[in-house]
This record gives sequence, C-alpha cells and structure tokens, in this order.
Amino acid sequence: MSSSQLIRVAVAGASGYAGGEALRLLAAHPFVEIGALTAHANAGTGLGEVQPHLRGLAHRILEPTTPETLAGHDVVVLGLPHGASGQVAAQLPDDVLVIDLGADHRLESAADWEQFYGSTHAGTWPYGLPELLHAPAPGADVAAAPRQREKLAGVRRIAVPGCNVTAVTLGLQPGVAAGVVEPTDVVAVLANGYSGAGKALKPHLLASEALGSAQPYAVGGTHRHIPEIAQNLRAAGAPDVTLSFTPTLVPMARGILATATAPLAAGADPEQVRAAWEAAYADEPFVHLLPEGQWPSTAMTLGANTALVQVAVDAAARRVVTVTAIDNLVKGTAGAAVQSMNLALGLRETAGLITEGVAP
Amino acid sequence: MSSSQLIRVAVAGASGYAGGEALRLLAAHPFVEIGALTAHANAGTGLGEVQPHLRGLAHRILEPTTPETLAGHDVVVLGLPHGASGQVAAQLPDDVLVIDLGADHRLESAADWEQFYGSTHAGTWPYGLPELLHAPAPGADVAAAPRQREKLAGVRRIAVPGCNVTAVTLGLQPGVAAGVVEPTDVVAVLANGYSGAGKALKPHLLASEALGSAQPYAVGGTHRHIPEIAQNLRAAGAPDVTLSFTPTLVPMARGILATATAPLAAGADPEQVRAAWEAAYADEPFVHLLPEGQWPSTAMTLGANTALVQVAVDAAARRVVTVTAIDNLVKGTAGAAVQSMNLALGLRETAGLITEGVAP
Amino acid sequence: MSSSQLIRVAVAGASGYAGGEALRLLAAHPFVEIGALTAHANAGTGLGEVQPHLRGLAHRILEPTTPETLAGHDVVVLGLPHGASGQVAAQLPDDVLVIDLGADHRLESAADWEQFYGSTHAGTWPYGLPELLHAPAPGADVAAAPRQREKLAGVRRIAVPGCNVTAVTLGLQPGVAAGVVEPTDVVAVLANGYSGAGKALKPHLLASEALGSAQPYAVGGTHRHIPEIAQNLRAAGAPDVTLSFTPTLVPMARGILATATAPLAAGADPEQVRAAWEAAYADEPFVHLLPEGQWPSTAMTLGANTALVQVAVDAAARRVVTVTAIDNLVKGTAGAAVQSMNLALGLRETAGLITEGVAP
Amino acid sequence: MSSSQLIRVAVAGASGYAGGEALRLLAAHPFVEIGALTAHANAGTGLGEVQPHLRGLAHRILEPTTPETLAGHDVVVLGLPHGASGQVAAQLPDDVLVIDLGADHRLESAADWEQFYGSTHAGTWPYGLPELLHAPAPGADVAAAPRQREKLAGVRRIAVPGCNVTAVTLGLQPGVAAGVVEPTDVVAVLANGYSGAGKALKPHLLASEALGSAQPYAVGGTHRHIPEIAQNLRAAGAPDVTLSFTPTLVPMARGILATATAPLAAGADPEQVRAAWEAAYADEPFVHLLPEGQWPSTAMTLGANTALVQVAVDAAARRVVTVTAIDNLVKGTAGAAVQSMNLALGLRETAGLITEGVAP
Repeated sequence: MSSSQLIRVAVAGASGYAGGEALRLLAAHPFVEIGALTAHANAGTGLGEVQPHLRGLAHRILEPTTPETLAGHDVVVLGLPHGASGQVAAQLPDDVLVIDLGADHRLESAADWEQFYGSTHAGTWPYGLPELLHAPAPGADVAAAPRQREKLAGVRRIAVPGCNVTAVTLGLQPGVAAGVVEPTDVVAVLANGYSGAGKALKPHLLASEALGSAQPYAVGGTHRHIPEIAQNLRAAGAPDVTLSFTPTLVPMARGILATATAPLAAGADPEQVRAAWEAAYADEPFVHLLPEGQWPSTAMTLGANTALVQVAVDAAARRVVTVTAIDNLVKGTAGAAVQSMNLALGLRETAGLITEGVAP
Repeated sequence: MSSSQLIRVAVAGASGYAGGEALRLLAAHPFVEIGALTAHANAGTGLGEVQPHLRGLAHRILEPTTPETLAGHDVVVLGLPHGASGQVAAQLPDDVLVIDLGADHRLESAADWEQFYGSTHAGTWPYGLPELLHAPAPGADVAAAPRQREKLAGVRRIAVPGCNVTAVTLGLQPGVAAGVVEPTDVVAVLANGYSGAGKALKPHLLASEALGSAQPYAVGGTHRHIPEIAQNLRAAGAPDVTLSFTPTLVPMARGILATATAPLAAGADPEQVRAAWEAAYADEPFVHLLPEGQWPSTAMTLGANTALVQVAVDAAARRVVTVTAIDNLVKGTAGAAVQSMNLALGLRETAGLITEGVAP
Repeated sequence: MSSSQLIRVAVAGASGYAGGEALRLLAAHPFVEIGALTAHANAGTGLGEVQPHLRGLAHRILEPTTPETLAGHDVVVLGLPHGASGQVAAQLPDDVLVIDLGADHRLESAADWEQFYGSTHAGTWPYGLPELLHAPAPGADVAAAPRQREKLAGVRRIAVPGCNVTAVTLGLQPGVAAGVVEPTDVVAVLANGYSGAGKALKPHLLASEALGSAQPYAVGGTHRHIPEIAQNLRAAGAPDVTLSFTPTLVPMARGILATATAPLAAGADPEQVRAAWEAAYADEPFVHLLPEGQWPSTAMTLGANTALVQVAVDAAARRVVTVTAIDNLVKGTAGAAVQSMNLALGLRETAGLITEGVAP
Repeated sequence: MSSSQLIRVAVAGASGYAGGEALRLLAAHPFVEIGALTAHANAGTGLGEVQPHLRGLAHRILEPTTPETLAGHDVVVLGLPHGASGQVAAQLPDDVLVIDLGADHRLESAADWEQFYGSTHAGTWPYGLPELLHAPAPGADVAAAPRQREKLAGVRRIAVPGCNVTAVTLGLQPGVAAGVVEPTDVVAVLANGYSGAGKALKPHLLASEALGSAQPYAVGGTHRHIPEIAQNLRAAGAPDVTLSFTPTLVPMARGILATATAPLAAGADPEQVRAAWEAAYADEPFVHLLPEGQWPSTAMTLGANTALVQVAVDAAARRVVTVTAIDNLVKGTAGAAVQSMNLALGLRETAGLITEGVAP
C-alpha cells in the first residue's frame, strides 16, 4: 500500500478506554484517515462527550456497531467485550483488516479458552505481538530467532495480546529462547494501573478505593492471561510452562510494571543471561533492554509504544529476575494494534508510533 | 524558512523537567533536528540516565552549557534557573532564535521584576503566548482583537510565559477584552501538579508528603506569577488589575486546573459572557472552549498543547467563574515554546504539536 | 450521663463512607457500645464484606433500616440519602439522640432548601458545628463570641454540617465575627478528596478518571453547600453574604483543602486580622491556627478531628486569604457527629476523638 | 508495672517518619507519658515545624540526642540511621527498655550482617515480632507453636523487624511451620508506599517521579531484608530458605502489599493449607486471615496495627500464593514497637493500639 493514499480505519467500541486509545494513536498516524466510530450504549452521542481528550474528533458522532456503519473501511479495530468480535468480523469482507483488541482470538487451545473464559472458542487469529520470539534452531543465537512480525505481513485478522501478557512475555522470552531460564516455575507479580480494568462501574474501581491503596485481584491461578503467557513462552521454545501469576492494582491510571522471575537454567551464567536479552532486543524499535543497573518505571513509557526491560541474576535465589514496564493501553493494547496494522499493510512498522514517554 | 531543511535546535538545561519536555516535543517535530544538549551539574552524563523516557535520545551525552556547545544552532532553548538566561543569550548571535523557558524576560515592568524576584531586571523579550488578546478597538468584537501571535513572526528572542500565568490568562482574558468582567477583583486558585516545582530536592516535594495530600504555597500575594498575569490582563484591555492568587499542590505529576473568577461587569449578561469566550477561541487551534455544561479536567490535556476552558456566570455571586486545564509542561512551558518557535520561524503554528491528551 | 455506663449507638447507613467512618470513630470511643448496624441494599451482608477495614466489627451483620432494628439505642446516627432521615427520625422516640450526617435538617431557610435541593424542607435541627461563632456583642472581642457548642447541650436532634461548609466556615468566620472582612464577596475554591462523593458508581468517580487529574464540579453557584455556608457566616455576624464557591476533585481519597478569601474590611489591618483568628481558635481543641508562615496540608489532618487554619492578608489584592485543611470524613462528617454527641450527652467534648493526623 | 503509673518514653530521631509514627501511637497510649524528643539536624526546632500532624506535641522542642537528654526514661525508642543505635543504647542503663526501629540488632548471623550491610555486626536483640512462629514440636499443630511474644516478657532491648520482613513473614510462616510449603524457592514481590524510604532527599523519591508511576528497587538479591526474612522462616521451621525478593515503589504514602509465594509441599492439599493459616492466626489480635475469597488492600490497614493475610493454592502452578497488607509505619514499624513494648513491660499487648484502618 502506498502511503500517498490514506488508510481508512473504523473503530468499534470507540467509547471505551481501548477504543479511545486506538483513536488517539490513529489520529496521529500519518497514513490513516479515521472513518466510522461506533459504540453500543453510547451510539448517538458525540465523541467529545465520552472522550473529551480527543480534541480533533470531538465533533464526531458515535454510530451503532453494525455491518453498515463498518462497511467501506480498509481496517476495522474492535474494542468490544468478550464474545462480540467474532460475530462482527464474520460480517466483514475477508480483505478488510480486522484487529481485535479483545481476547476472543488469542488462544490456540480451545481447551484453554473454555477453561479460562467459560465459552466456546471462536478460533485463532494471527497474534499481534511482533517481537514474540519463536524458538530458534538448535544451537542458533537468539538474535537469529524468528519473530512474530514475519507472520503478520499481509494478514487480514489480528488478535492483539493481553496487556499483562505482553509485559510478562517480553520480560522472560529471551531467557526461554536462549535456554538460560527454566520456564517450569515462573512467578510473575504485576503492579497495574486501573485503566486495564476498563470503564465498568464496579465498587473496587472507585477512586476512593484506589487512591492510597494497593489491592490484588484474580489471585491463585484464575487470571485469563495465564494460558496466553504460557502459549507465548512455549512459542519461544519452552517445552512446558508453569506459571504463578498475580496482578495488583496500584494507584495509577496507566502502566504495568511486571516483575517476572524464573529459575536460572543449570549451567547458565549471568553473562549468558545478559547476552540473551541483548540479542533479543538489540534491534527492536519498541522493546529496549536498559543499561545494566538501570531499572524501568512505568512513567518512562506513559503514552508511548515502548517496553523497557531489565534483567538480573539472583545467584543466591538461583533465579533470573526481570522487570518490564509498559503502558497497558499503548504497547499493551492500542500501540500493538497500530504496530501490527503497519506490518499487515506493509507500512513502516514504526509509522505513527512514538517511543518517548510522557514523564514525569 | 523552508520546511525541507531541518531546523537545528539546542537545549540548554536538558536535564530538568522543562528541558526534558522541550526535547520530548522537539523529537516529534517534523522539521527539527536536535543538536547540542547541555547541562550544568549533569554535564558529561548520558541523557538516558537522567531522562530515561526519551528513548530516541538515550545515547546522547550532556555537554556543559557554554557558547561553544551552543554555537551553530538555529534555535537555542533555555531551561535554566532564574538569572542565567540573559547571560547565555548575550553570548549567542542575534540571528539565533533564543527561547527562554524561564522567567527572566517576561515582565515589562522593572519595578515588578525587582519586587517579586529581588534582582535587577534583565529586559523584556517578545512574549510567547500566541493566543494573548490585545485590547480590541473600541466597539470591536473580541474575535477581531489583535493577538500576540502577530508579534512573534520573525522574532529572535522569546520569553515563554509562566505555566500558571497561561492558565489564568486564557481563562479570563476573553471577558476582559470584551468588557464583561471587572478585572479589579480577580481571584484565582489553582490545583497544581508537582512537576511545576522542578527537580529541586526539597522536603515538601517528597512523594511521601505529596501522596494523598493537598498543600498551598506562596499564599497571600507573594507568587511571582502575579505581576505577569496582571500584565497580560492589562494587555487584554484592563485599565487596572487586582489579583488574589493561590496555587495548591495536589497529588499529580502534571497539570494545572485553574479556577479564576472575576466580578461580572455591570450590565453584562450570560449571553454576552459566552459570546466573548466563543469569539476569543473559536479559531484557536490549541485553546478550546468546551460545550456548555462540560468542565475540563487536567487529564484531558496530559501531554498535549491544549488548553480547555469553560466559563459560567454565577448570578447570585455576581461573578464569572472560569476553569482552565492545561499540562503545565506542555501548553504551560515547552509546547508554548514550540508553538512560538513555529511562529517566529514562519512554520505552520501547529507543526510538531498535538491536541490529544493522554487520558485516562 | 455517667461515663460508667456505655452509650448504645446504632448506625443506619453503615455500609456507606460516612456511616463507616462513624463506626470507625465510635469503635474507639471509650463510652460507646455499638448497637445495630443497618443498611438498605446491603442488609443481610456481613460488615466485614463492605467495610473490611473495621476489623473489630467484621463479624457483625447489617440489618435492614427499620424502627425495630433502631429501637433500644441511646443514639442513632443516620448516614442516609437526602430525604430519608426525617422519616426515620420521626419513628424514633424524642429522647433518643438522632444525629443526621446528611443534609436534610441543616438549613434554616425553607426557600434555600427548595432552591438547592428541589424538595420540601424537612425542618431544622440544632447544628453540629460546635466551633461556629455567633455574632459577638457590639464591641466585644471575638474570644467572647458565643459558640454553637453552647446550644448543643442536651439536644436530641443534631444536623451535622456539610464537609465543605465546615472547612469554609472555619476558615472565614473569625474575620466575619471581628468585622475585619467583608462577607459580601467571598470566593472559595476547594481541593476535595473523592470520598466526599460517596460510594455511588458514577463514571467520573472511577479511579482511572481520577488518578493523575483534577476536575471541578458544581461550578457556577449550584453547589448545595452554598446556602449553608452563607447561613453560618450570617450567624457569625454577616448582615449579608455573597459567595462564589467551586469544589475541585483532586486525586486523594480524603481531605479538603479550602482556600477562602474575602475583601479586607475598610480600616482593618493585618494585626487585627491575625488577632481575630487567634481569638477565635486559641482555646478550641480541634481547630488550630497554625503559626504564621506555616500552611496546612490535608495529610496533617488525615483520620483526625482536626481543622488546621492559616490566614494571610494580601495587601495588594485587598483580600484576606485563608486556607483550611480537614479530613472530610472526620471533622467534616463523623468526627463532628461524635463531638456534637459528646456535647449533647454531657460527655467531655473530646472523648473518643484524636487530633493527630496519619501523616505522611 | 501497674497501669496507674505512666511509662515515660523518649523518642530519639523524632523528626523522621518512623520516629514521628512512634510519637503518634505513643500519644494515644493510655499508659504512656511522652518524655524527651530528640533529633540530630533538627535539634532546637519545634516539633510542630517538622511533624505538624502531631498537634498535641506541636509545642515541644527537639533536643539533641545525648545520654543526658535520654536519661530518666523508662523506655527509649530509637529511630536512627544504621549504626547509631548500638552506641546510644550502650550509654543507657540496662534496666531501660530500648527499642530500636532500625536494623542494627535484627540479624543473628554476623556473616549475613556483614554481607548485606557492609559493616561490623552490633549484636542481636530480642526480636519484636510477637506473632513470629517458632517451629512446633514434631507432629504438633501450628496453633500450638511457640510464638515470639513469649520471649519478649521482661526484655530490655528490642529490635523491631523491617517492614517488608513483617509482611512476608506473616504471609508465609504458617505454611512453613505446618510443613505445607517448601521454603526453598520463595518468591516475594511487594508494592510499597514511599514512606518506607524515609525522608531522605533523593531524586527518585520526588513526588513528580512517584506520581502515576511504579518503579522497582534493590532487585536481584541485594535488599537488606532478605536475610531477615530467611532468619524468620528458619525460626518457623524451615531447614533452609531460598528467597527471591523484589520491592516496587507505587504511588501511595504508606502501605505494603506483599505477594509471597512458595511451592506447595509434596502431599499437601488446599484444606491443609487453609488449616495452617487459620491455626496460626485464629487468636492473634493484630494478624487476621480474611475469609476465603476476600483479598486485602493496604487501605484496610492504614494507620492501624493490623496485618491482613489471604492465602490460595494455585494447583496448576503447584504454589501457595499469599498476599499480606500492612501499614509499613504501624505494624511494619512503630506499632510493632508499641506492641513489643507492651509485652516487655507486662502491659496488655493491645494497649494503645487499634485494628481499624483509615479507609477509604
């Protein structure tokens, strides 16, 4: 696709946080023209009422989400509740690029889907994490590992990863691909901003409950992102994955700080560990291994499509410890969507995306 | 200046919050090449250590702030402490555009400067608030009022306004220019994010003191932004200005929410009030009057060069009440610098600037 | 009442923030035994589920709010929505002390009530702000002004003030009583924690909207606390009151920082101003004028029944500026209830109340 | 000691956060009279200037920390930097109860001390965590395990635990004592409020850096609380402990939310796990196991001497996951000091301490 013709993108679910962030990024994309904006309960409302920060689109009116309103676009981004995206996508032509910000098409295993989501699996779409490592050939360096971006060229369906999944995967996959960590006893604990929970009106999401407090949720192996992380680490070369995963809500609107640790593989040393992470991310535009000794904060990535990763070896604990910071709505959701869209459409992968966080 | 050749910009004081934000915006500017980055105590350090969110510049090394390091640039942005900018500017050629993010050259009155800053006045530079209204001709509509942007074309020195000043001025000036408010008893109280206080290590700026708390500062007529606000309202047509001004620090990193109120002028009615604000901002790219009944929040402007304004008439109190939200580091500082730079250099005023806030 | 027998207190609306805070304070009161806890939608639920911070009461079950469940108590505290308290109180014996945390019985003027609340006035109860000054005799010192506490001895109905009202009243009333400020053009702007808005599930109260942002509400003369503030300042001696009042939500769970300013009276000087505030609060156990130059923060009062006040004269603006910090749920609500209860029952006024805030 | 005579307590380091919190609690203690308040740099200053939230002590003057100023007290609480407490304690009579809020006398192993603190070990004092389990007799139930409180009666030196140590120990020790978890691969990740870092003026502790962000520190096995946690778990019966420990600063002033996980012991089932935690804490006044399915938040414990614990078994991950919430300055520091003081002096263990958190 030539960049001289604009890509026409519709966003369904434009009144939610994910949809709104997709719009924020698309509005700054040099090759995109924003088409229909649709919603369910908010159909008929001006976007300026529900997303007042999107100044350039404040005059736009939300339409209902129907095949008609979504017709005539090159790309349709879906920010819908579980279970809705498959149905909408089925009504769209095959040559329209459909990008699902939701979970419906992420998992390859129908059994995993049914166990964690409790409904019938809707099928698997190409996975929108361009930096996902695929197991390198035996003996090959991690730098030479195939990456997911190669699988995204020309696709017309994309399943954007879960935000926590992206953080934990990016933190640990170099060690898995290089064989320097054992993925059989991974432990991940995350500090999460509240926007990851969406706009639903639930008591524990009230400001009064959040301010000055930290609270966990979905503890003990129940979180739906668990099978997706395992799927990614298996893709990176893990024969089997065991994962303890605990997200904790902390008083910030955005951001994920994922601390993920795995046992150091027998015989692996700190130099090999660092080399694996360096090899994985040396050429990545959006995933940066920080210099030794510098640790990421979520503010460094606010509003940017950046993942910042650091890794250390705790010799006494015989564990590799990684910390990864992302903005859950950008690299964790809408930025991944735009990055994957760029790859699918043959655009420069970085088009319309920035790496500079809004800090402090 | 043609946009086909890049403008080479140096930033002095690149390790501070204002300098860092200037870099964040300049890095996204399509017509800018970032030149020297200089600092004082941090000279010799990598920018990645002190501004780790600026990923694209992380490899750059901070140089000392000297005439030599600043030589050879089209634009020099100064994010320096009070009193330093005049000296640096004097060492730069007259045809270099020097943009001072600090206070040294904002005030026209040497007496005001001496009273509020306690030192010798360094002279006045063209004022970098393009939307500043100048008193319209008698009987003319506010829409026809001259604006400061007209005075910025071709200038080579710019004094960027104080962040609080921008918020209060934008909130009240339409009413002053239209004669529908009395500027003789203005009261402004602001909710301020902490980044406005800079990186100085002071006890009341510690996170433990800030989190979960609100605290005022510079109460009772002592804040240095008072004479600057008065100067602006006089420019907009006020024969005399009396201002009570109280900033309060609230637990956010960025943002100013300025509540500014002035007596309703005798004979003025709510329709005239709304008309004045509409006339002032209908065509402004970065200052938006919200639809009636919608009030701004600072999050709507986070990271954006946007000021959101709302106005209401409190008939019982016989006052006009305005609320203005800006990001203190963008429209309040670095965004105003870039916007003014664009005007000075004959570029499109909006080049490199965005209006969409990073919300939620 | 002798302190050797415990006072039996019921709390209706025990699942809300105000009711929960009343329970927190009452649980620490040396002369109180907590009786029935009632709720509406949460009746039948364990208190530990909805107020898990109240460890000593976690095993208690919420009962429905009925005359039967509330029978047999010395005191009934009502934390109910507008309009409900009058009905409940009417069903309770006259010799039961009923303390209404809500607004129903605060206003003396039925016209004010109807204008601001849009319903029929339910009558006026003794007002639970013990420090409220009543106009001193002509020529008398403020220290000698009658205070509201004198009117609370033995009463059996108490209307607890609105939280914003308490903050603004305490800030300004000394100047009104002493005649050193003009109450005809009061301007008050408040930084408010979110708990003041209660537990209602509204979009603008979501954590994602609150974190990192400030937003005003009820701007332009519509807030229901306006007539109540005016009523108080009239009690303190103002013949007439004009008030511009703007609350702003800032990212903290608790706390009000009220900046309230009024014109300096003709002929008044800074010494007279300071003397008025000192005279008003020198002997108050819960309202403290800070030493000159020290300004309050809300954290200083967190969890405590303390109001911290500071005052300055802005000579150039010809205004007196006051800043008052309280915890909206303690001195602003439940602490005022306990303090007033103590007075009504003849207990030591400070029983069960603390002045030390939980800071930092 | 009879409760009819007041215990005279001095606080050295009264200007810091730990010392200030000790004062806040001691001021509410029914059997305590507060004696000398001492400081180093702040000697000569009024307490009201540095701890303005402590209203009842605002008039007190900070004295220098010398044997003379500390003489004549029953109890001396030390809130001093590393290395200072041993020297001060050596100058105090043996029959004075000295309570060290710092780290100097917590570790039993001189080798651990030297490795993690880099200085000479100052000796070990009785450990101020009354709920610490000591390994039960073989075959005995956890409920019958000896607890540290038994060792505190009559002691005259107490080392208060590190705040993170308390959270992780309380979370995991029931499983260790009962043999249902394997302490050989413990992983703990904590969300920490900023007050744990003290009042030191460091760039990463500035409000602008903290607000809206999460950042880790002391990652990879370097944190000084690691050997102390291991010591406690060994006391509870672990033959050997391996621990990966990562604290993360999140935007709150107070609170620790510790997620600590350990492998499920071979043959252990979820019922045994729950039974162990129930047995450990059923009779503890300050450590509460929440009902199944309810998870703690730090706000529930704000200002209170309460630890809230929850535990779950993640069968797929073969790990026991615990989450513990405390207020780092209360149960994590000053509350533990008061509780231990009560035990040492033969007072009721709960005297002067509350369990109700200041929420929301």
